[in-house]
Amino acid sequence: MSQKAEYHNLDKPDDGLLRELAPGLTTRIFAGEHAMLSVVTIAPNAEGVMHSHPEEQWGVLLEGSAIRFQGGEEIAVKKGDFWRTPGNVPHTMRAGAEGCRVLDIFSPPRAEYKKAGSGFGAS
Amino acid sequence: MSQKAEYHNLDKPDDGLLRELAPGLTTRIFAGEHAMLSVVTIAPNAEGVMHSHPEEQWGVLLEGSAIRFQGGEEIAVKKGDFWRTPGNVPHTMRAGAEGCRVLDIFSPPRAEYKKAGSGFGAS
Repeated sequence: MSQKAEYHNLDKPDDGLLRELAPGLTTRIFAGEHAMLSVVTIAPNAEGVMHSHPEEQWGVLLEGSAIRFQGGEEIAVKKGDFWRTPGNVPHTMRAGAEGCRVLDIFSPPRAEYKKAGSGFGAS
Repeated sequence: MSQKAEYHNLDKPDDGLLRELAPGLTTRIFAGEHAMLSVVTIAPNAEGVMHSHPEEQWGVLLEGSAIRFQGGEEIAVKKGDFWRTPGNVPHTMRAGAEGCRVLDIFSPPRAEYKKAGSGFGAS
């Protein structure tokens, strides 16, 4: 079977399953068997909603800067920083003045993100 | 427990478990519970060894360009491209003239990459 369908691009706006996470936070989701990628764009100064889920998460700051809120701590992150968020640890982000882009990785894939919808789909 | 140990940076040379995959291919490995990240640097025109493993893999081309060999196909990839490699699909890469950097994601984590060593650790 051809592998061509397995290739994507971070900047292709119609690639992936689009989801609005919160006002100013949109993402494109790519589900695999064991891992799921989510290419998130956060508008300048926009902020998500504190939430948690049992799935492990990793984030990579692709562009811009942000404050990462995780496990009761606030950590300033800039392009090139990445982090792990263990399952069930509450987390969210607030973009800096120029906005940011984040590659989120979930393992296992988050069931709520396999279908169309909006929001963080978690407590 | 503080979350500070969960934060890393793509450009920090002593962060992660260093591994030489092949001549001209080095990586820094970060193991989680369900996913493992590997920040690979490939020297100009260097090429890995065709191999496969049961773990699912994703790759993100962070910098440069390369040819991706996967499942009997050759696909040119450039910065911003990313791809999924299903388990047991043979794959390797050859960097372009300027070299490249790749973020590889394994799920589940590859047991061979949790300890010091060299090579791709797979068939």
